[in-house]
Amino acid sequence: MGESDVGIPGTVSGTQHSVKRNCKMNIDEFKKFAGASIDYIADYCENIRDVAVLPNVEPGYLSQQLPKRAPEQPEHWTKLMTDLDESIKPGLTHWHSPYFHAYFPTAQSYPAIIGELFMAGIGAVGTDWESSPAIVELEVRVMDWLAKILGLPEEFLNCSDGPGGGVIQNAASDSTLVGLLSASDKKIKQLKRLDPRTTKSEIRGKLVAYTSKESNSSVEKSGLIASVKMRLLPTDSEGSLRGRALNEAVSKDLAEGLIPFCVVASLGTTGTCAMDNVEELGEICLKQGMWLHVDAAYAGTALACPEYRYLLKGIEYVDSFNFNPHKWMLVNGDCSAMWFRNCKYVEEAFEKKSTLSQSVVPEIERWQIPNVRRFRALKLWFVIRIYGVDGIQKHVRHHVSLAKHFEALVNADERFEVVISSLGVVCFKLLRDEALTQVILEKIAKRKNIFIMPYYYKSQLLFRFVVCSRFTQYEDIDKSWQEILSQTDEVLSKKGEMCKEVDNICPFGRF
Amino acid sequence: MGESDVGIPGTVSGTQHSVKRNCKMNIDEFKKFAGASIDYIADYCENIRDVAVLPNVEPGYLSQQLPKRAPEQPEHWTKLMTDLDESIKPGLTHWHSPYFHAYFPTAQSYPAIIGELFMAGIGAVGTDWESSPAIVELEVRVMDWLAKILGLPEEFLNCSDGPGGGVIQNAASDSTLVGLLSASDKKIKQLKRLDPRTTKSEIRGKLVAYTSKESNSSVEKSGLIASVKMRLLPTDSEGSLRGRALNEAVSKDLAEGLIPFCVVASLGTTGTCAMDNVEELGEICLKQGMWLHVDAAYAGTALACPEYRYLLKGIEYVDSFNFNPHKWMLVNGDCSAMWFRNCKYVEEAFEKKSTLSQSVVPEIERWQIPNVRRFRALKLWFVIRIYGVDGIQKHVRHHVSLAKHFEALVNADERFEVVISSLGVVCFKLLRDEALTQVILEKIAKRKNIFIMPYYYKSQLLFRFVVCSRFTQYEDIDKSWQEILSQTDEVLSKKGEMCKEVDNICPFGRF
Repeated sequence: MGESDVGIPGTVSGTQHSVKRNCKMNIDEFKKFAGASIDYIADYCENIRDVAVLPNVEPGYLSQQLPKRAPEQPEHWTKLMTDLDESIKPGLTHWHSPYFHAYFPTAQSYPAIIGELFMAGIGAVGTDWESSPAIVELEVRVMDWLAKILGLPEEFLNCSDGPGGGVIQNAASDSTLVGLLSASDKKIKQLKRLDPRTTKSEIRGKLVAYTSKESNSSVEKSGLIASVKMRLLPTDSEGSLRGRALNEAVSKDLAEGLIPFCVVASLGTTGTCAMDNVEELGEICLKQGMWLHVDAAYAGTALACPEYRYLLKGIEYVDSFNFNPHKWMLVNGDCSAMWFRNCKYVEEAFEKKSTLSQSVVPEIERWQIPNVRRFRALKLWFVIRIYGVDGIQKHVRHHVSLAKHFEALVNADERFEVVISSLGVVCFKLLRDEALTQVILEKIAKRKNIFIMPYYYKSQLLFRFVVCSRFTQYEDIDKSWQEILSQTDEVLSKKGEMCKEVDNICPFGRF
Repeated sequence: MGESDVGIPGTVSGTQHSVKRNCKMNIDEFKKFAGASIDYIADYCENIRDVAVLPNVEPGYLSQQLPKRAPEQPEHWTKLMTDLDESIKPGLTHWHSPYFHAYFPTAQSYPAIIGELFMAGIGAVGTDWESSPAIVELEVRVMDWLAKILGLPEEFLNCSDGPGGGVIQNAASDSTLVGLLSASDKKIKQLKRLDPRTTKSEIRGKLVAYTSKESNSSVEKSGLIASVKMRLLPTDSEGSLRGRALNEAVSKDLAEGLIPFCVVASLGTTGTCAMDNVEELGEICLKQGMWLHVDAAYAGTALACPEYRYLLKGIEYVDSFNFNPHKWMLVNGDCSAMWFRNCKYVEEAFEKKSTLSQSVVPEIERWQIPNVRRFRALKLWFVIRIYGVDGIQKHVRHHVSLAKHFEALVNADERFEVVISSLGVVCFKLLRDEALTQVILEKIAKRKNIFIMPYYYKSQLLFRFVVCSRFTQYEDIDKSWQEILSQTDEVLSKKGEMCKEVDNICPFGRF
């Protein structure tokens, strides 16, 4: 008996219930709808290279097509499929097009799609273990798998004897915020113990965290939310935050009576995928009693390959670490993996008392902001098993190899120079005529054949090219490069004329 | 050409690329896997009433079954299906079983499952409009649909001329936090304007927010995260926070030099689904310059039915409002709908400057904590259209009617008394022998036929029964009641013996 049978009249205590049929979709219709949807998605993915990566619509396009009010009566799913195809799809930017080279990759894969389907179909949520044991236990286990795939030290694992552990957060912004809140709570409690007369808000008013100017804008936002100062420090010539810059800032703040308490280091900055020097920063953190959080949102996936493990140098100083499988590890969002060296601090930041090690299964619900968790571990489990560690490594190496291929193409043209190339990100510039960069980018954007963004870095306007789609092949990279070349040729050939258009260069910066 | 073709050898600048096949699932396998998954989910849903609602496993059950390391080589999806069935399913609590009466409903419906499937399949994310116009524009429109369905005033709509608008947040905990951060930023800036010499942290140290003792624990947590005091105020005999209690607390705090700045009212408290008196609270908020946030996570869905709109009395005082379609409105999580009377404040809380009304489409990405949004509007759109407003109303009325049916059953037994009944929540108690409540609940829990929880409310230990599943029918309610009765009969018949077991009553409280 399904939902469609609800409301069969019954009488209790003299109450007559009226017949209420509240289901507008029975199981057969669901299966038809689902089948058609699977076919649609399969076609969408397999033919994604044939669609222009950027949509050809103006702001407000959709509101002209959609009714202003919800329908009173149920509509048939076939009508939705039509609208999806005719109204929604034309307004989509296709993040999985091989010609999408903007932002960072956002993961999508067939195993992850099915993982999400099961998550939705089972529709269970987990708070503590009792609310749904499988949800909690699978997350605990796959987070250990993941830590081992990345080569994180034993002490971060859920299965280790110590107080460390890992949990899935929504996004890197949550992970950074949770790290920052743990750090500030730890420092405030330490100082309160030393001097019980000071108030929490007096201490908080003096707390200072540090990150680089190149870190993701969500790090700065985390500082706002956690009500602490967040200093954006200068980076070295490679875009890396180094010990020296941190030392100077910390000394200055200490001299002013402020309290340095946390560093948020980036492994893979948002603009150029630069790597902060975790070891140098870590030594200072240890000395000054500061928490070290590492945000490896994009680059973390590369750690699946042993040749990138050198990035973990200094991990012994790290208090919390996150990366987003939903960026580069083929796992659909939301899925930000976060580990703590000592979970006591996050538990204490959110509650009065840590209960670490009182239960067989760690109470991972105490390591996050929301009360509940969805069954996100499923999609991690599906992806890791269906690709295997080997498949994930191949995916990473393939993307890096595509980026190297692109880098070689750029360097083979004497008008351009690669400024920074790191993993799947290649930032390059016009050697002369830098002022025309934006004109070229605008022309490329108008043609909608590829999606590439500018990045304003150390007083230079760069082309920022990222290998994003799992469908990308060498031929696609060649085509994207041809598109950049053709527009460059055109703009440079009409240089005098074009320069008039370059009055207004926007200062693209951190995003 | 799909992902399976990647890595065709190519040469660029003398580099020979090796063949790399990184796809472990081609399109045909995906379709087979998806088809089998749809069948599995359909069977799971249609036969959910035949499975015990609670799993019969011990903590750590899954770690004994799963390997300690991820597989190096890819595994076939059929192996995953087997493990899902044999290892995961036995450890699930079935939130959609008609015999699940714990917590609150968590929504799941066929249209929403397909909505999630498309969200995963398209796999696009939105930041600003350009990142994917359809994602942003559909969200803007369906949030207006939803506001109209609920009968919210015009000024909260995205399409209104004013500065109001709505956006989808992850969870009620995010919504409350965003409300609180907007409120504190507004108040701090106001006071800084009056006295520029005071520091932000001096002001923050004096800020006080108010909520009821019965509000969700995430409200208290929001206070911790936002670094403000959060007072948990006593409620009236109905569990409602009233103006008098707020007035007393505010006066006391003002007398101590503190700064009242925000009230978080609940429409539908977590324990008993009590309704705070928004009008009384609002009048005080207006007088004291306090922000009024309403958390209607569960009960908000009832507003789809005009007969419950009286709950909106006082809405003219409300600054921000949220409810979770992922609780009772048939939309799979995560989906918390939030509206602001004036979006300027949330924009200013997160950034230096509000740019309201500079663009055709509101910049909803500035009204949330994460940088990105998934295409969650799709599932709202699917559910609203496939059910119609009429279908949503029927769903609400059906659940309330089931709760009334249950209430009548309880009241017909002279050993019990219904203490509070509100929407789909019925809290009742044993008239004598209250001490045996926990013994009865434990016996019910052990049998795993229904899932019902205790709630400790105003010094009474109550049975808390909630109509949760969309599959629930009158016969299911009867069966659940029979289960409670049978265990009550057994316990009461062996009263003397049982009392020995009642040494250790846990003080169940807010969750």
